[in-house]
Amino acid sequence: MRSSSRGRVDPFIVMDVMEAANAAEAAGRHIIHMEVGQPGTSAPEGARRAAAAAMEQGALGYTVALGLPALRARIAQLYGEWYDVDLDPQRVVVTSGSSGAFLLAFTALFEAGDRVAIGAPGYPSYRQILKALSLEPVLIEAQAENRLQPIASNLKGLNAQGLLVASPGNPTGTMLNKDAMSALIGAAQETETAFISDEIYHGIEYEAKAVTALEITDQAYVINSFSKYFSMTGWRVGWMVVPEDHVRQIERLAQNMFICPPHISQVTALAAMECGDELQENMKVYTANRQLMIEELPKAGLSAFAPPDGAFYVYIDVSDYTDDSRAFAAEILERAGVAVTPGLDFDAARGHQTIRLSYARSTEDIREGLERLKVFMAARG
Amino acid sequence: MRSSSRGRVDPFIVMDVMEAANAAEAAGRHIIHMEVGQPGTSAPEGARRAAAAAMEQGALGYTVALGLPALRARIAQLYGEWYDVDLDPQRVVVTSGSSGAFLLAFTALFEAGDRVAIGAPGYPSYRQILKALSLEPVLIEAQAENRLQPIASNLKGLNAQGLLVASPGNPTGTMLNKDAMSALIGAAQETETAFISDEIYHGIEYEAKAVTALEITDQAYVINSFSKYFSMTGWRVGWMVVPEDHVRQIERLAQNMFICPPHISQVTALAAMECGDELQENMKVYTANRQLMIEELPKAGLSAFAPPDGAFYVYIDVSDYTDDSRAFAAEILERAGVAVTPGLDFDAARGHQTIRLSYARSTEDIREGLERLKVFMAARG
Repeated sequence: MRSSSRGRVDPFIVMDVMEAANAAEAAGRHIIHMEVGQPGTSAPEGARRAAAAAMEQGALGYTVALGLPALRARIAQLYGEWYDVDLDPQRVVVTSGSSGAFLLAFTALFEAGDRVAIGAPGYPSYRQILKALSLEPVLIEAQAENRLQPIASNLKGLNAQGLLVASPGNPTGTMLNKDAMSALIGAAQETETAFISDEIYHGIEYEAKAVTALEITDQAYVINSFSKYFSMTGWRVGWMVVPEDHVRQIERLAQNMFICPPHISQVTALAAMECGDELQENMKVYTANRQLMIEELPKAGLSAFAPPDGAFYVYIDVSDYTDDSRAFAAEILERAGVAVTPGLDFDAARGHQTIRLSYARSTEDIREGLERLKVFMAARG
Repeated sequence: MRSSSRGRVDPFIVMDVMEAANAAEAAGRHIIHMEVGQPGTSAPEGARRAAAAAMEQGALGYTVALGLPALRARIAQLYGEWYDVDLDPQRVVVTSGSSGAFLLAFTALFEAGDRVAIGAPGYPSYRQILKALSLEPVLIEAQAENRLQPIASNLKGLNAQGLLVASPGNPTGTMLNKDAMSALIGAAQETETAFISDEIYHGIEYEAKAVTALEITDQAYVINSFSKYFSMTGWRVGWMVVPEDHVRQIERLAQNMFICPPHISQVTALAAMECGDELQENMKVYTANRQLMIEELPKAGLSAFAPPDGAFYVYIDVSDYTDDSRAFAAEILERAGVAVTPGLDFDAARGHQTIRLSYARSTEDIREGLERLKVFMAARG
């Protein structure tokens, strides 16, 4: 049976690591999971209580395509609380995770064949979703001196119809400050390049608040999710803020492509937004874990990384030790019992010399993982 | 800010009816909803109990992209129970509703610019999703003598890369029997046209079991959902069965485009599959409602329809009364207090002379709606 070329996307390199980790665990070994991209915590208790109540109260049929009005209003309010931005709830679109938001945004903004610039290293699914939608990902090789974020001058000569940035970024955890974000938005607007800001890790930040593109312009697509800060990965609910004159088009697309985001997840998300105390407990864990990473990784000889501004990742240059991050990750798993992600998923050209470590799990796990890495690296010499 | 032509999909005509119905209800009128495309019932009680328990037991993070293995296995088992088809669970892909399945299927099968044949009348989102993915919907004008389903000879000269059929169909409720389905599959395979079978209304059938494409061939994409028979619309969980050699590609696409279907919805769906008694109670309601429709609509002068084989719709030719189904629907709402769907959403060329009535709600509502229609039509003369 026929299949399309656009549908033939690359496999995740980390899947090999995860399969090997699963096999090791099935064989009775204890593995520390520093490859995961999600919190180990569940949705906040108050949110789960709201979900249980909603199941008894209504049929939970389709919602309107843009999402429950109360949730859209509450998300708009968050922009006041977090950034002092006054946001019209009509511009908020609840989506089936940030995944659903990307599908909607790329479809609404770009024709088949259009070019969309993204930074490398970056979230691997950006380029695969672009490819699946017959768009051409244009990679900007971000530089260490820019903390692995794109800068405005990178846009020159790219002839791109879109620019997608992520701050805090995955795999780096580095952020664009207001000046850097403004410069990128300015450069994009000069060349009529649609600007998309992936803000999925907002809320998980350590020394400074992350900047939303909406502090700078209304002419951008901003994508966020309940997966990370609100600890609701598996619920598949996120949101997008779009320019006012794009709302109707997005509504029609969402009606047809998704009908609506999961109703139960929307109810749960709305309640999660009132669970600040519990979410701050999660933040305390991430903060302690980050501190451990910054202090202990250099003791393992792993010091070539920028301290993360946000998210729960450290992206390490391991070129002193290997030119094959895939083999290096396999070796770490085999000998140290720690699962890590080879950089190749994030940066096909340069990721053979990098690995990503996640510190999203418990502090106990992170401490143990770091000890194992120190022993392993010392033995490796 | 830029926007794409492919993202500019048509609005649903029925939205006008729904807005007018909402306004009438807000003004205190009682409206009977025969425009809805979903059950009024909630997920089965046993399913909701399983969901509540799952929320207390685990973090409900991401599942693997193809869905919970237990759910894939249980769906495969359903093909044995319903059709006596022996299905390898590895070919089952759990999706974010049938919407997610369409996005995956169209992306995996077709390049930008490819032509995909669909019957008219048909589910409006088919053509809008195709357009959004830069594909060209090719409409087959189905004929009344074929009970408004495409037939094999329609494929001749179409030069289509894909054919999508729905049995039972929306808006007609008519089914393809095994001979008709076989002929369509044969014609598609002769011309290397990918065959996609939308089986979302399976389980809701009245006089004969619906035929799955898998009884005839393994070389097809079969799409189904927990929304209709299992009464879980808002949960956004469905499934797809694909040829064995397509599973890996679909897995990679799903990892990138969706990460996974909602975890809580997968748990709920698995439990719903053991709630046969409650689901049969729903079926008794649909069966009684259908009988009322068949008996009473002709008394209102609305007799030009094929008795539905499945689903919960009647699609009526109203050309004796109007050439403007939109105005006719508005008139029915205004004067009879019954919301119905103008045929234009399903068949842009011929739907000005048709309306769709849904009988998914309570029998009490359907009886009242039919009474109102009789009074209205008698008064209209």
